[in-house]
Amino acid sequence: MSTSLIILAAGKGTRMQSDLPKVLHRIAHAPMLWHAMRAGLALEPECTVVVAGHEAEQVEAAARDFDPEVMIVRQESQLGTAHAVAQARPALEGFAGDAIVLYGDTPFISEETLAAMAEARRDHDVVVLGFEAADPGRYGRLVTEGDSLLRIVEYKDATEEERTITLCNSGVVAADAQTLFGLIDAVGNDNAAQEFYLTDIVGIARARGLSATVVRCAEAETMGVNSRADLAAAEAAFQSMARTRALEDGVALQAPDTVFFAWDTAIGRESEVEPNVIFGPGVTVESGARIRAFSHLEGCHVSRGAIVGPFARLRPGAELAENVHVGNFVEVKNALLHEGVKANHLTYLGDAEIGARTNIGAGTITCNYDGVFKHRTVIGRDAFIGSDTMLVAPVTVGDRAMTASGSVITEDIPADALAVARARQETKLGLAAKLMQMLKARKAKLSKG
Amino acid sequence: MSTSLIILAAGKGTRMQSDLPKVLHRIAHAPMLWHAMRAGLALEPECTVVVAGHEAEQVEAAARDFDPEVMIVRQESQLGTAHAVAQARPALEGFAGDAIVLYGDTPFISEETLAAMAEARRDHDVVVLGFEAADPGRYGRLVTEGDSLLRIVEYKDATEEERTITLCNSGVVAADAQTLFGLIDAVGNDNAAQEFYLTDIVGIARARGLSATVVRCAEAETMGVNSRADLAAAEAAFQSMARTRALEDGVALQAPDTVFFAWDTAIGRESEVEPNVIFGPGVTVESGARIRAFSHLEGCHVSRGAIVGPFARLRPGAELAENVHVGNFVEVKNALLHEGVKANHLTYLGDAEIGARTNIGAGTITCNYDGVFKHRTVIGRDAFIGSDTMLVAPVTVGDRAMTASGSVITEDIPADALAVARARQETKLGLAAKLMQMLKARKAKLSKG
Amino acid sequence: MSTSLIILAAGKGTRMQSDLPKVLHRIAHAPMLWHAMRAGLALEPECTVVVAGHEAEQVEAAARDFDPEVMIVRQESQLGTAHAVAQARPALEGFAGDAIVLYGDTPFISEETLAAMAEARRDHDVVVLGFEAADPGRYGRLVTEGDSLLRIVEYKDATEEERTITLCNSGVVAADAQTLFGLIDAVGNDNAAQEFYLTDIVGIARARGLSATVVRCAEAETMGVNSRADLAAAEAAFQSMARTRALEDGVALQAPDTVFFAWDTAIGRESEVEPNVIFGPGVTVESGARIRAFSHLEGCHVSRGAIVGPFARLRPGAELAENVHVGNFVEVKNALLHEGVKANHLTYLGDAEIGARTNIGAGTITCNYDGVFKHRTVIGRDAFIGSDTMLVAPVTVGDRAMTASGSVITEDIPADALAVARARQETKLGLAAKLMQMLKARKAKLSKG
Repeated sequence: MSTSLIILAAGKGTRMQSDLPKVLHRIAHAPMLWHAMRAGLALEPECTVVVAGHEAEQVEAAARDFDPEVMIVRQESQLGTAHAVAQARPALEGFAGDAIVLYGDTPFISEETLAAMAEARRDHDVVVLGFEAADPGRYGRLVTEGDSLLRIVEYKDATEEERTITLCNSGVVAADAQTLFGLIDAVGNDNAAQEFYLTDIVGIARARGLSATVVRCAEAETMGVNSRADLAAAEAAFQSMARTRALEDGVALQAPDTVFFAWDTAIGRESEVEPNVIFGPGVTVESGARIRAFSHLEGCHVSRGAIVGPFARLRPGAELAENVHVGNFVEVKNALLHEGVKANHLTYLGDAEIGARTNIGAGTITCNYDGVFKHRTVIGRDAFIGSDTMLVAPVTVGDRAMTASGSVITEDIPADALAVARARQETKLGLAAKLMQMLKARKAKLSKG
Repeated sequence: MSTSLIILAAGKGTRMQSDLPKVLHRIAHAPMLWHAMRAGLALEPECTVVVAGHEAEQVEAAARDFDPEVMIVRQESQLGTAHAVAQARPALEGFAGDAIVLYGDTPFISEETLAAMAEARRDHDVVVLGFEAADPGRYGRLVTEGDSLLRIVEYKDATEEERTITLCNSGVVAADAQTLFGLIDAVGNDNAAQEFYLTDIVGIARARGLSATVVRCAEAETMGVNSRADLAAAEAAFQSMARTRALEDGVALQAPDTVFFAWDTAIGRESEVEPNVIFGPGVTVESGARIRAFSHLEGCHVSRGAIVGPFARLRPGAELAENVHVGNFVEVKNALLHEGVKANHLTYLGDAEIGARTNIGAGTITCNYDGVFKHRTVIGRDAFIGSDTMLVAPVTVGDRAMTASGSVITEDIPADALAVARARQETKLGLAAKLMQMLKARKAKLSKG
Repeated sequence: MSTSLIILAAGKGTRMQSDLPKVLHRIAHAPMLWHAMRAGLALEPECTVVVAGHEAEQVEAAARDFDPEVMIVRQESQLGTAHAVAQARPALEGFAGDAIVLYGDTPFISEETLAAMAEARRDHDVVVLGFEAADPGRYGRLVTEGDSLLRIVEYKDATEEERTITLCNSGVVAADAQTLFGLIDAVGNDNAAQEFYLTDIVGIARARGLSATVVRCAEAETMGVNSRADLAAAEAAFQSMARTRALEDGVALQAPDTVFFAWDTAIGRESEVEPNVIFGPGVTVESGARIRAFSHLEGCHVSRGAIVGPFARLRPGAELAENVHVGNFVEVKNALLHEGVKANHLTYLGDAEIGARTNIGAGTITCNYDGVFKHRTVIGRDAFIGSDTMLVAPVTVGDRAMTASGSVITEDIPADALAVARARQETKLGLAAKLMQMLKARKAKLSKG
C-alpha cells in the first residue's frame, strides 16, 4: 500500500526564546524536522507533505534541503492539529493510500514503530500511537477495550477513573488518507481553546463504525521539544543512543559521553574515537581509523589506518586516504590527501591535493586566498615540504620535490627539484648582548623616571 | 532599615588539603567568599564586615578586590561562631540597623532567601535560616511552635523526639546588630569543644522575651564546602544553575554539560555556544554571537554576529566587534578587532588594533615582545595581511595596505602600499632527488655498520 | 609465605566486536591484563603465570611489557576455568606456596582485598572471593555456614532457597598451589557446556576434609568486561576512582568529570588541573604545577610551578623544569625545557634542549626531520628566539643569543650573538590598491561572463 506523510511543522515555539521556528532548531546538527522526515522514510512514502506556518519560508527551505520533492502547504492561522492536517488535503487530492501524521517537534519516533503502525493498519481503520507514561500527568488518555481503541480523552475532560489510565496519546496517527480527511471534516472546535483537535477523530471514527487500535512505543520515542531545556534533553537522548549504537557496532570509545555525533555520522568497526571529539554533519570514518582527542570533524572522509589529531580540525571537503596522519593544530579544508600523507603540526591545508607519502613540515600554509579569489595548491607524491613553507596558490609542486624550510613558494616546482626562497643567515657577534643591555637600561631609566 | 553583613571567613579548612584558606578556593573562577559577598549585595548593605583569621592577609586582599570598602576584622583564635561574630562588634560600634551573619564557605544562599529574612525581621527579633533536610543526619535541629522558633538544639544534645525533626539550622542569622552583640555576650562555652556557639543566641533571646522565627530555603542553598570533593560538588551545582539559566535566557547550548561558565559570564539571547567551551572571568557575549567548540575565553567581549572558534583562545582585553571571525588555533590578547575582521587560522594577535574588514592571513604573528618591553601593532581598515606575516611591533599598517606572505614587517606601511620582505625563490633542478639519495645512502650505511 | 599469581587471559571476547583479544582492550591506557597484574603485585608474588589462548602471542607480548619475568602458558582449547588453571601446573612445578587465581578481564580487584585473602589463608585451605550482589541474577551462589564456605552452586543448579542467597562468586580463588592443582585433578566436565569449572574445587576440597572460607569485597571490584559497553563502564569506574583519589590527595579539579587520568598518572598536592585535560600514560606532575584546560599530556614530566596550556600538547619525552610555561597551540616532544623557559604560542619543540629562562617566540619550529633522520636542537640559557624562527637541526644557539623574527637558522649561533636570516622589507607605494583593483575587476568580469 502506498503511504504519504503529513508532518506538522507550523508552530512558533514561543518558549524556545528564539526567532528561529521551533522545528528548525537542531538536534545533532540536523533540524528537528529532518529527524521526523527521516523516520518517515522507513515507510518509503510516495509523498511527504509538510504543514508550515510560522516562518513558513524558512521551514520550506529546510524541508526541501532534506527532500527536494517534498510538498509544502501553509497553515495561515493556528487553529489546532486537525486544522493543520486539513491543510494537507489539496496536496493529497486523489491520493489513494495511507496518511501518517507526524510532528516536526517529535524527532525520535523509530522506524520500527512506524512499521508496526503500518502493519496494524491491515486490521484497523485508524491506528494511534500510544505509550505507557511513567508519569501520565496531563497527557491525553487512550481508552481501550482489548485491541480496540474506544476514544482519546483529554486530561481535563477525563473522569477520575480515566485518569488512572497510563496509556497515553502521542498524537501520531495513521489512516487511509481520504478517510482521515473525512473524519477531520467532522471535528469541531467547541472547547476552551476553540481549537480543532486531531484526537477527536477516534471517537468520530468509532461512531461511524470504523475500527481503531493502538500501537505502543517506548515513551522516549514520543519526547517532544518545547523549550531550549527540552532541546538540550533531546540532544542528550540522541547522543546517548548514537553512542550506544557505536559501541555495539564495535567502535572503541574510551569515554562515550564526551563524543558528539551528528545525525548522519558513519563510523566503521574497530575505529577508535578518543575523548572529546566532535562530529559535525557529513562525516564518514572507515574501519581502523583513529580519531584522537580534541578533534573536530565536519563534512569529511577518513580512511582506514588514518590518524587524526589530537587537536585536529577537518573541515568540509577534507578527504584523507589510507594511513594519512593529520596531527595537532592542523586544519584541512577542501583538500585531498593521498595515501600516507603526513601533516603533523601547526598547518593549514586548504583547496589542495597532496600526493601519496608526501611529508608536510610543521607550520606549512597553503596561501589559498588573495583577498578576492581562492586558488588551488597541487603537490605531487613523495615530496618533502619543509617547515614553515608558504605555498602561494595557484602553485604546483612536483613528485619528489622539496622546499627548504621557511620558503615562500610562488613559482611551480618541477619534480625532483629543490626550491629555496629565503635569505642567508648573518650572525652578528655580541650584538644580542648589546641589544639586551640597551633594553634593560631603558627599562631601568623608565622605572626610575 | 539599613543592614550590615557579617561574613565569617576565618577557618583554615584543613580537609581541603591546601595552603590556601578555605574561603579563597574558587567556584566558577571566584573565591567562595565573593559568592557570599555577592549574595549579600541583594540587601544593599550599608557595610560589610569580613571576619578573617587563618591567612587573614590573603583573605583581606581578596575581600577588598571584590569590595574596596569592606571592613576586615581579625579572629586571632578560633573559639566558635559566636566568638567570630563578636569580633565584628568594634567595626559596627554605633551602627543602627540589622546584621546578617553569612559564611564564606556557604556560597549559594540566594538573594530571594536573604530578602525573605529581611522581610521576616519586621515581625521578629531574631530570624534564623532553616531548611528541610532530606537526610538530617547530625545537623542542628530547629525546634518550632507555629511561626515561633523556640531553640536550636545541637544533634548530640537532642532528645530522640527532637532528632525526628527535619527542619535544620543553616547557621545564617539576622537580628538588630546591637541586639545580636548583646545576645552573644551571654553565650558560654560550657561544652565539649569549649567553643562559643552562635546557635545559643536563640535560647537566650527567647529567655529575654525576644521573638524568633525561621525562614526556610532549599537545602541546596545551604551547601557548605569542607573538602575538595565538596568544592567540586559546589562547582557542579553552580554550573548546573548557570546552564539552566542560560537555556532559559534563550542561549543555544547543544551540550550544556560541557560548557563552563564563570561567576560573572554575561551572554545574550540567541547566541550559540557549542560543546566544550570554557568561560573564564570577565566575559560578555552579545546576542547572536556564536562560540564554537573547544574555545577558551577570558576577560573579553564578543559582539553580535561574531564567530569564535573552534579552537580559539580569547585572552583578557580581546575585544571583538560585530561580525568578527576568529578561527582555529588563533589567540587574541589585549587587541581590538573592528567590525568584520577575519583571523581564521593559526594566528597570534596581541597588543593590537585592527581596522574594519581587514583580513589576517594564516600564521600571522604580532611580535609584541622584545624580551623586555611589549609593543603595539596598529593595522588600518580593509588591509590584507598575507599568510605568515610577522608584524614586529611597534609597527603600523595603513588602510587597504597589503603584506606579501612570509614577510617580516619592521617598518610602517602607508595606506594602499604593498610591503614585501622575502627572498626570491630559487629552484634547483634535480637537487631534491640528489639530497634524498644521499640521506638514504647514509641511512643504509648506518644500518649496516 | 611465598605467593604466585595465575592470571587467566585466554578468552577471545567475541562480544567485544574486535580482533584484539579481550584482555588487551585498554582501561585508562593500560590493557585490562595489566590492571589485574598490577593488583596482584600487592602480594609481592614470587612469580606470575599468565594463561594465554586466543591471540596468545599478542597477550604474551603485552604481559612481558608489564613484567619481563612473567611466565606464559598456553591454553590451546578453551575447556573451562579449571582447565585454564591446570595449564599453569608445569610452570609452578615444585613451587611451594600459595597460588591466587585472577582474571585478565576483571581489572578492579583491590590490593586490600587480595591482602585480606592472603590473611584468610592462614586459617583456611581454600579462600574464595565473594561479594554481596545488589542483583544476584545468574551469578553462582556461595553457600556458607558461619565462616565456612560449603560449596559454590551455579545458578542453574541452585535450589529456590539457594537462589535467595545474595553472596555471589567472583571466581577469584586462593589456595596452596600444589593443593589447588590436586583439587583441579578431580574436577569433571559432566555438565551442559562440558567445561571444567574451577568453582567445583570447593566441594571437592570440603569432601577431602579441607576447610574453605569467603572473603568479601565490594561488588564494584568484581566488575567484568564482556562488551565495549562494559569496557566503557569500566573506564568510567576507573576514572571516577582516580578523580576521587586526586581530590583526596589535594589536587584542585574544577570539573573532575572532564579530566581523564591514565592508569599510572602521578600528580602532586596543590597542583591544579582545569577542565578537559587528558593524561596519557607515563605522566608525572609535581605539586604546585598548573595544567590548564584542553591540554593533552603523554609520557612527560611537569615540575613545580610550571604552567601548561590551555591547548598544549606534551608528547613523550617532554620534560618541563620548574616554572616553565608552555602555552596555547604548543607541542613539545622529546625535549628538555630548563627552569623558567617560556614557549607560549603556536610552537613545535621536538628533539631539543632549551636552557633556563630562554624565551621562545610565537611560531617557532624546531625543524628536526630531514625526511630520513631526526636531529637535535640545543639552545642555551637566557636566549631570545624571535617569533617564527625556524631552527634547522642539528643546530646550536648559545647562551643569551638572539634570533631575529622570521629567521631560518641553519648555522650555530655563538653566545651573545644575534642571528638574522631574512630579507629587507620593500614597501611599494600604491601597489596594494592597484592589485586589489585588478583582482576586483577580474572578479567583476567573471561574474558578468
